[in-house]
Amino acid sequence: MGAVKSPIGDEAQKIAGDVLQGSLIDLIDLSLVAKQAHWNLTGRNFKVVHEHLDEIVALARGGQDDVAERAVAIGVNPDGRARTVADRTRIPQLEAGYLDDDKVVAAVTDILAQIIARFRERITATDEADPVTQDLLIGIARELEKQHWMFQAQT
Amino acid sequence: MGAVKSPIGDEAQKIAGDVLQGSLIDLIDLSLVAKQAHWNLTGRNFKVVHEHLDEIVALARGGQDDVAERAVAIGVNPDGRARTVADRTRIPQLEAGYLDDDKVVAAVTDILAQIIARFRERITATDEADPVTQDLLIGIARELEKQHWMFQAQT
Amino acid sequence: MGAVKSPIGDEAQKIAGDVLQGSLIDLIDLSLVAKQAHWNLTGRNFKVVHEHLDEIVALARGGQDDVAERAVAIGVNPDGRARTVADRTRIPQLEAGYLDDDKVVAAVTDILAQIIARFRERITATDEADPVTQDLLIGIARELEKQHWMFQAQT
Amino acid sequence: MGAVKSPIGDEAQKIAGDVLQGSLIDLIDLSLVAKQAHWNLTGRNFKVVHEHLDEIVALARGGQDDVAERAVAIGVNPDGRARTVADRTRIPQLEAGYLDDDKVVAAVTDILAQIIARFRERITATDEADPVTQDLLIGIARELEKQHWMFQAQT
Amino acid sequence: MGAVKSPIGDEAQKIAGDVLQGSLIDLIDLSLVAKQAHWNLTGRNFKVVHEHLDEIVALARGGQDDVAERAVAIGVNPDGRARTVADRTRIPQLEAGYLDDDKVVAAVTDILAQIIARFRERITATDEADPVTQDLLIGIARELEKQHWMFQAQT
Amino acid sequence: MGAVKSPIGDEAQKIAGDVLQGSLIDLIDLSLVAKQAHWNLTGRNFKVVHEHLDEIVALARGGQDDVAERAVAIGVNPDGRARTVADRTRIPQLEAGYLDDDKVVAAVTDILAQIIARFRERITATDEADPVTQDLLIGIARELEKQHWMFQAQT
Amino acid sequence: MGAVKSPIGDEAQKIAGDVLQGSLIDLIDLSLVAKQAHWNLTGRNFKVVHEHLDEIVALARGGQDDVAERAVAIGVNPDGRARTVADRTRIPQLEAGYLDDDKVVAAVTDILAQIIARFRERITATDEADPVTQDLLIGIARELEKQHWMFQAQT
Amino acid sequence: MGAVKSPIGDEAQKIAGDVLQGSLIDLIDLSLVAKQAHWNLTGRNFKVVHEHLDEIVALARGGQDDVAERAVAIGVNPDGRARTVADRTRIPQLEAGYLDDDKVVAAVTDILAQIIARFRERITATDEADPVTQDLLIGIARELEKQHWMFQAQT
Amino acid sequence: MGAVKSPIGDEAQKIAGDVLQGSLIDLIDLSLVAKQAHWNLTGRNFKVVHEHLDEIVALARGGQDDVAERAVAIGVNPDGRARTVADRTRIPQLEAGYLDDDKVVAAVTDILAQIIARFRERITATDEADPVTQDLLIGIARELEKQHWMFQAQT
Amino acid sequence: MGAVKSPIGDEAQKIAGDVLQGSLIDLIDLSLVAKQAHWNLTGRNFKVVHEHLDEIVALARGGQDDVAERAVAIGVNPDGRARTVADRTRIPQLEAGYLDDDKVVAAVTDILAQIIARFRERITATDEADPVTQDLLIGIARELEKQHWMFQAQT
Amino acid sequence: MGAVKSPIGDEAQKIAGDVLQGSLIDLIDLSLVAKQAHWNLTGRNFKVVHEHLDEIVALARGGQDDVAERAVAIGVNPDGRARTVADRTRIPQLEAGYLDDDKVVAAVTDILAQIIARFRERITATDEADPVTQDLLIGIARELEKQHWMFQAQT
Amino acid sequence: MGAVKSPIGDEAQKIAGDVLQGSLIDLIDLSLVAKQAHWNLTGRNFKVVHEHLDEIVALARGGQDDVAERAVAIGVNPDGRARTVADRTRIPQLEAGYLDDDKVVAAVTDILAQIIARFRERITATDEADPVTQDLLIGIARELEKQHWMFQAQT
Repeated sequence: MGAVKSPIGDEAQKIAGDVLQGSLIDLIDLSLVAKQAHWNLTGRNFKVVHEHLDEIVALARGGQDDVAERAVAIGVNPDGRARTVADRTRIPQLEAGYLDDDKVVAAVTDILAQIIARFRERITATDEADPVTQDLLIGIARELEKQHWMFQAQT
Repeated sequence: MGAVKSPIGDEAQKIAGDVLQGSLIDLIDLSLVAKQAHWNLTGRNFKVVHEHLDEIVALARGGQDDVAERAVAIGVNPDGRARTVADRTRIPQLEAGYLDDDKVVAAVTDILAQIIARFRERITATDEADPVTQDLLIGIARELEKQHWMFQAQT
Repeated sequence: MGAVKSPIGDEAQKIAGDVLQGSLIDLIDLSLVAKQAHWNLTGRNFKVVHEHLDEIVALARGGQDDVAERAVAIGVNPDGRARTVADRTRIPQLEAGYLDDDKVVAAVTDILAQIIARFRERITATDEADPVTQDLLIGIARELEKQHWMFQAQT
Repeated sequence: MGAVKSPIGDEAQKIAGDVLQGSLIDLIDLSLVAKQAHWNLTGRNFKVVHEHLDEIVALARGGQDDVAERAVAIGVNPDGRARTVADRTRIPQLEAGYLDDDKVVAAVTDILAQIIARFRERITATDEADPVTQDLLIGIARELEKQHWMFQAQT
Repeated sequence: MGAVKSPIGDEAQKIAGDVLQGSLIDLIDLSLVAKQAHWNLTGRNFKVVHEHLDEIVALARGGQDDVAERAVAIGVNPDGRARTVADRTRIPQLEAGYLDDDKVVAAVTDILAQIIARFRERITATDEADPVTQDLLIGIARELEKQHWMFQAQT
Repeated sequence: MGAVKSPIGDEAQKIAGDVLQGSLIDLIDLSLVAKQAHWNLTGRNFKVVHEHLDEIVALARGGQDDVAERAVAIGVNPDGRARTVADRTRIPQLEAGYLDDDKVVAAVTDILAQIIARFRERITATDEADPVTQDLLIGIARELEKQHWMFQAQT
Repeated sequence: MGAVKSPIGDEAQKIAGDVLQGSLIDLIDLSLVAKQAHWNLTGRNFKVVHEHLDEIVALARGGQDDVAERAVAIGVNPDGRARTVADRTRIPQLEAGYLDDDKVVAAVTDILAQIIARFRERITATDEADPVTQDLLIGIARELEKQHWMFQAQT
Repeated sequence: MGAVKSPIGDEAQKIAGDVLQGSLIDLIDLSLVAKQAHWNLTGRNFKVVHEHLDEIVALARGGQDDVAERAVAIGVNPDGRARTVADRTRIPQLEAGYLDDDKVVAAVTDILAQIIARFRERITATDEADPVTQDLLIGIARELEKQHWMFQAQT
Repeated sequence: MGAVKSPIGDEAQKIAGDVLQGSLIDLIDLSLVAKQAHWNLTGRNFKVVHEHLDEIVALARGGQDDVAERAVAIGVNPDGRARTVADRTRIPQLEAGYLDDDKVVAAVTDILAQIIARFRERITATDEADPVTQDLLIGIARELEKQHWMFQAQT
Repeated sequence: MGAVKSPIGDEAQKIAGDVLQGSLIDLIDLSLVAKQAHWNLTGRNFKVVHEHLDEIVALARGGQDDVAERAVAIGVNPDGRARTVADRTRIPQLEAGYLDDDKVVAAVTDILAQIIARFRERITATDEADPVTQDLLIGIARELEKQHWMFQAQT
Repeated sequence: MGAVKSPIGDEAQKIAGDVLQGSLIDLIDLSLVAKQAHWNLTGRNFKVVHEHLDEIVALARGGQDDVAERAVAIGVNPDGRARTVADRTRIPQLEAGYLDDDKVVAAVTDILAQIIARFRERITATDEADPVTQDLLIGIARELEKQHWMFQAQT
Repeated sequence: MGAVKSPIGDEAQKIAGDVLQGSLIDLIDLSLVAKQAHWNLTGRNFKVVHEHLDEIVALARGGQDDVAERAVAIGVNPDGRARTVADRTRIPQLEAGYLDDDKVVAAVTDILAQIIARFRERITATDEADPVTQDLLIGIARELEKQHWMFQAQT
């Protein structure tokens, strides 16, 4: 089968495709990182942070599907394979073993801040290229920024 | 914090811990592989296979949580980080780009068969070490074998 | 199409396959017998026994699907056709016409006791052959034994 | 206990009773045949046909209860025992073993067509005898004819 | 406001209107009688019969609305006022005070038989006059006959 | 069977019993009156008033069950038979035939006001006799007064 | 593919097919007309009529599917394309622009009366030809006549 | 009644109004076309495509309401009458009679591509005129493009 | 931490606290007694009484939470530990082993009558001390008295 | 329109009206205060307290509606306008800006204690005047006291 | 704790913060005004307008949370205290006492028009400053404009 | 009535019966202890621990029913009366009065560890005696061990 015919032009497709692929890596790794912390967490606030991390996982997984399906809808193949994620992720990785709740809250706050910064650039980048993609990214950014506030407020 | 006190002895903990960590890698990568195919699929059976793959994702994600939380419940830290998954996965990887539906069905059938073989070994390994872990693995194996049949039946 | 590749060896497949086919006949005929009594029942306890019999139907129908799909998942074709059920069932058959509630309660108690005895043998038979099949049978046996108690308690 | 007093006359009861007993055999065996195919199916359309067959099972099981309870409501004992179904069914039986999806679709189309023809006769037969029974049969016939179209459309 | 314009002719309207008004009285009083027994019941089968009577109430109340709204839809004013019900009901009335469960079951069986006989006449009467009204009455009759069987089966 | 043993003394039982029987007549007839208007209504506000009347029916039917079951719980037999309701109701009756929406709103406002006045007396009467009955009546009165306001506000 | 094999004879198929196609045009255009009024409505009763019109849309859309699928189930192709609807509809069309609520209520009452008259003819026409189709039309007619009463009652 | 006062200026209203009316025609006809195919479909993938087409219908109907209500909210009367749709639609029409599943998939892919192209222009056109309308169109476009991908992937 | 500051005065707190602690013992032991009977029941009415007893358990468990949380809300520590319940309960205890259904119904009727008598005293005792506590007790008493009637009616 | 006719006398109306208006101010401002804290909260317990505050908001909003509708039901106009709330509230106001979680818990505990004291007075005040209003206030007081305990327990 | 770190620059934060605070005041007071009318309403359309106003309340309350949480997410403290709302609201206030339904509809239409005008300005103001905030405001504006149309259509 | 006939032999019944009775005592007292702590808890983590304890209660109550009904299903009478629980429980008892959250977390962790140790022995004990009972115990043990980890992680 040939490539899916894109509803947008070649250049716009290139810009939006890169942006979506970058977002996909961010969101897949965010879900992996949040699960890693969800499982290895310790500390007096264990129960609350344990459950809060699953909200991040749900947000990241929902976002993955949206950006990956958006990519293929404009004719660009998303790549969310383990090797690709491991090699291209820009998210600082957690250490193995038990993770203290305070440190997790600080780390997640920091990770979200970095991802948000990249989403902000992506929103700007797609303004001309594809308002449909941009609107999707804005929606995800709003959720990320809301979680960023809620994690930051606990630090 | 010190390690979670395990309800089972040291040797049993070692055996069950290794088995659970191996299962975790299998199940995380299974979810990534199934999503990769879910997004890049093409072919006359696109709609059915696209949706069927999400049943695999749901099974793999549910299983991840169960095995990882079982690991930590016996005092062993699960490791589900991107790098760990990429390095240790034994699942044959999909190619990038569009994936033909027939090939995806064949690949998933094959991947499930391999994972099932490893789960069968793990079930044997935990028979003495920890019947609680074994019972969990049996439950997941039954679901994997059911999906294996359903994918295989389409080939 | 060739046979579904079984995740277990030939001998284990033979043992588990026989056990599952026997269970299938038991559970299909149990559902037919319970419906026959559900429809032709009379007596002061009609309403309660009428509804209780539908719990047996639901249990038997759920179990049918589980054992039949387990059979095919290990590469053995289940046979649940009318002729096969009629010829191979070991459940004592009800008479035609109206059925007194007390007699139905006694008959169902007896039928369940016989099926349970066969399930007990099947659980033993699959201990080595296939722990996944065994686990499924244990789960069904628990439900059958619970219903056996509840019917017996009314006699 | 004596027979349930019928709200309709003897002759009408005889006609409606025969019609309902015939419908009961059709619907019980339809559910057994559809489950047999549901379990032993193979082929590229496995997933869709596998699930479609369960719609037939649900329709047949719902119809069984309605016709059997209608029979006893007019004072006629329904007989849905395994031996009765096996001996009196007029539905062409499936072969044992794996069943190809295309052949299953053709077989189910044909079986539905035959059952519908019998329901059409039963609707005519009950026009005078019992409009309440007739109305029930018309409702089931509509569902059978809708499924007949949907299976036929795939051939 | 003038009368609602009827979708059927004058004579048909007269026939159907009388039939619907008669049905309304039957169904309202059935609901009152069933509630009276529901509240004043005693006996070993109290709990089952108490709840079974509420199924009669639900059926009678649902039927009331359907026949009364059908009447006004064909331009005939339904009359369901207390005085009208008390004066025109043909249902044998229960005594005041505690009601033995066996007697209630017998009485409800008898009451349902009488109402069913009247519905049978109404179904015949509307065959020519208004098939839409007839179809509604057939549906209610089926439910009444089903309940009649279930009460009778307990006697 | 003898009378249900009352949890309260004879005099209190007499007072509370009378109050509950009176409430029962009010609530049964309120439901009949509201349904009569629901069916025969006309006028520009038909749809809104038609649906609003069913809120009254639901309130009256829920209240019936509560007061009648409260009566029998204190050893007093409630009487909700058609003849009793028709003879003892103090609710002004609606005329037969079409009912103008404005007149219905005025009539229901008035009927509710009268019932509320009686409930107010009953609340006072049971203050000493039975606080449990009183609490039930207060709860119903609150709902009646809320509906009274909402009907009155439309006049 | 050849035509779907009809469960009824050629002449009956012709009669029922014409009736169903006519009903389809009525119901599709009814849904379009009701939506047009739903959107362009003004007047003091806007909110109630706006929402009431969506009940008509839901009824018309449900009916469309039923009659069209019934047509194909008897081997007749339904035609619900825009051009066909526009050319063959017998429903008087609404003017463009704002629509006064009183006029909409009158217009919908009138449109429903006309459609009901045609359904009445169709019910008669299919009495011999196909009781299954007839039963479907009777069911839709009952809903249309109920809505006709409710719209008429507001005028 | 005079026109609804628009929250936006005259020129913006003109631009947005035209865009919304055009979108309304596209979405109404899309729902009619998808239903026509839903009913007349044949082919091996009948069941999947039949159900997939109802997702298009749901999307188109939801979108219709949103764009039409958006139009009137800015003071422009939407026109969704049968004649208007038939005369102004730019969607290529399906032939009457049975429709092969492959051809339907190709036709729907093509129709969606054309509608998407018009939505892309409308999004550009409303950028200055009305960002609220634009945001609505972007949301619908995202759904249309997702469905376009999914239909295209099956070809 | 010091004691929770009570919203009521010391004496009132003392009275209400005693009453609530007494109620807590009654309700915890009622739930244990009802479960004991639920499990060890035999007799022809097994199914109905078995399920009815779980309504008592649900009522008793809901009541436990309400009275215990009410106690702590007024600054009094509830004590629901096993030893406290065993030592202070005034409920006559069931024998070990199988329990005949008729005897269970009689015993529960008697136990409920005794608890109700104590609740009646508690309602009087809190009238001055704390109307909020009193209102809670009245609500529980109503449910207990309703169950008392329903059990008594079966004897 | 004249005033809603009150079901209670003038003096009682005056007393109950004042009490309800006072409660309304308390409950509206409680909802505003709790939202203010919900949004501006910081601290290690952010997530738990943030969500707990929304339980207060839900309680306060539900209570507002109940007391305001109770006021108008007895013929007294509730006043819940911003200016009225700001001028008459007796709740100590929060500072602008970030709010530390410990301080919020202490402040809410204190605010609830003050509101409860006023509700206690209102319950006493309405004892003679209007038991229906009193019963409503008691119900709200119980919820407030339960929340007071839960906030106090964290301090 | 220091201020939440904003994901946007200082100037953008200032602009977006002001806009969000202004929106918060509008939405809180809109909810208070709508509740005030909801409670004090009278007139023939009471029921419809009473319920319609609660749709406004739900919209305003949902919007409050969104804008306030958006403010804090960008590091700006929202202020929704009673005094702030009373002093800064620009919504024309309702009079105390009963409110005629026609006047309420006119007043709400007018209030919504004014709020919409301010939201339009806020959407323009945030176009450069923060597209995420802008997107949120656009979504709320669409709902406000839809309600504005629906209220206006009734005048 | 004689004893329920057991599906297993005498010795197995003795072993399994003892194990189930022991488990019943553990689970009933666990539910009482957890409720005691749920009610008397204080401390900064009150809300989280308060709710977490109810997860323990739900687990313990569900487990009680399962082990008690399993006991009677194998012909052994479970004994869950207050005195039996108080005398035989091996769970260390909580002190009366307020309980500090940290101490509760430590105590529950310890209690769970002890119960788990006993369940581990019971799982071993039933391996030969009754695999159905063993499977039930394994399932409960898995839940207990998961909760043990979650409580321990907070210490």
